[in-house]
Amino acid sequence: MSESPLLLVHRPPTMKYMDESLTRYYRILTTHTSSDPLPIFLSRHASSVRAVVSMGRLKIDADFLSHLPSLQLIVCTSVGTDHVDLPECKRRGVAVTNAGGAYSEDVADYAVGLLISFLRRIPAADRYVRSGKWAKCGEFQLGIKLSGKRVGILGLGSIGSLIAKRLEPFGCIISYNSTCRKQSIPYLYYPDVVSLAANNDVIILCCALNDQTRHIVNREVMEALGKNGIVINVGRGGLIDEKELVKCLADGVIGGAGLDAFEKEPGVPVELFGLDNVVLSPHAAIATPGSFENVVELALANLKAFFSNQPLISPVRLD
Amino acid sequence: MSESPLLLVHRPPTMKYMDESLTRYYRILTTHTSSDPLPIFLSRHASSVRAVVSMGRLKIDADFLSHLPSLQLIVCTSVGTDHVDLPECKRRGVAVTNAGGAYSEDVADYAVGLLISFLRRIPAADRYVRSGKWAKCGEFQLGIKLSGKRVGILGLGSIGSLIAKRLEPFGCIISYNSTCRKQSIPYLYYPDVVSLAANNDVIILCCALNDQTRHIVNREVMEALGKNGIVINVGRGGLIDEKELVKCLADGVIGGAGLDAFEKEPGVPVELFGLDNVVLSPHAAIATPGSFENVVELALANLKAFFSNQPLISPVRLD
Repeated sequence: MSESPLLLVHRPPTMKYMDESLTRYYRILTTHTSSDPLPIFLSRHASSVRAVVSMGRLKIDADFLSHLPSLQLIVCTSVGTDHVDLPECKRRGVAVTNAGGAYSEDVADYAVGLLISFLRRIPAADRYVRSGKWAKCGEFQLGIKLSGKRVGILGLGSIGSLIAKRLEPFGCIISYNSTCRKQSIPYLYYPDVVSLAANNDVIILCCALNDQTRHIVNREVMEALGKNGIVINVGRGGLIDEKELVKCLADGVIGGAGLDAFEKEPGVPVELFGLDNVVLSPHAAIATPGSFENVVELALANLKAFFSNQPLISPVRLD
Repeated sequence: MSESPLLLVHRPPTMKYMDESLTRYYRILTTHTSSDPLPIFLSRHASSVRAVVSMGRLKIDADFLSHLPSLQLIVCTSVGTDHVDLPECKRRGVAVTNAGGAYSEDVADYAVGLLISFLRRIPAADRYVRSGKWAKCGEFQLGIKLSGKRVGILGLGSIGSLIAKRLEPFGCIISYNSTCRKQSIPYLYYPDVVSLAANNDVIILCCALNDQTRHIVNREVMEALGKNGIVINVGRGGLIDEKELVKCLADGVIGGAGLDAFEKEPGVPVELFGLDNVVLSPHAAIATPGSFENVVELALANLKAFFSNQPLISPVRLD
């Protein structure tokens, strides 16, 4: 029997959930266990590596790639691939796969959960009861009704479509903006984000982060959304101009936000900590054991396909 | 033009949201503004009153009713009418109306919000970020997946049906227990609460509180639900044996709870304040301005129907 293939695993030290499954089928080389500087480690030990597993959001840039002359595949456990230099991968003929729809249900659930939590003030309600204020100070401040809200979804991919499907029976009116209009979709399409914001009570961000979408929610979009408008972000933090967001929340330019992602995670602008009109969340939309099982399965399927010369299951387009 | 009819409004001092609408059509007598003891006030001033508006959950018992010999109608602004002595109303020929479906959408939204908040730990996530722990302590504890959960609804009336409709696209498997099996409903029916609990991951309480349903969720039901089971209560606190609930939550007999109602509101068992496996809420499921507009409209419609000898809009069955 031939030796099992060698994989390079590039992950934060704490992110161990794939180790057991991977070691069942592969020999593993991990970047975080070496005391050598990364470039030296890669040059010394990884020059024959044909596949990398990329977990979390550790950068895979041109320099990283330059030390891996045999590389043909990067398997990302995330949906977003903005931490990988995709043009350089294309130039080098390295294929990239992502988490596909493995997290989609959980992220869609979380988007709805953040929206209801914000509107009905559930985290604040929980704090109010736990602090004993209900008995001391009386009735809790009213929440905002969800039924009938106009919800604009930015990015109607696998996650966005599941969010729309979930919000329909709440009596929400769905519209969307996406890279292109989807022919078979009944929802109203807005060709730009400003008009999406201007015509909705809520916008939900679930598109990919790339050069076209970085800071796609800027001051102008927030002004169009208006003083009762709500932003829910279950995508990447970089989709929003965070400095402007903080100002718009503090000054009442928009009504509020439910944020699961930030520009410099785990850093969160401290100005947000004291605001009543936000629900803050530590990039947890994808985080359930069920999601991780899905993603392990998908990563293994992509690796198996690669090493047996079959088509990849969830390739990322590199153009 | 004849003098406008006299109404007796029985409400907590802070609950003012109907005052403006009522005074437009009626002369108003309020119980809370008098310095006389209630029985004396009623006997002196309310003996000719034909209709009472009952807001909040102030008791209307046999003694209260005995001072109102002309009474023919009680208009409740709540869905539940357990604060009114219904058998005594029946004996005296007093009709009772409730809030019908005025709050149903908001309560159904809130039930789903509490469930996702509990499973995905949104209030705890918000506390984690606000306290700065994300940057200090790293990754937040995983949540629990909603998709695929078996959800048993206790009371498939107007609220329960809307909850079911909302949870279907999340991939939940719905079943129910109700006073009787509903012929046109596709969900699985369980004839008793123990089997509902034993066959579901989550039970959601949204039935009326009465002699048959008081403490319907007792120790036996919670044991049947089991150590990963979840109770969501958007009905009345009295539906659950609260002492046993506290023990079951603390001892891990059940997995957790999302509670919007308690037995002695605004009193909440202090043992719950420190528990991680609960989301606590100050009876806020009905509380949005939209709901209150609905309920004002419905109360006025019931009063108008009564004073013009038309059928009531949302009568409560008194047998």
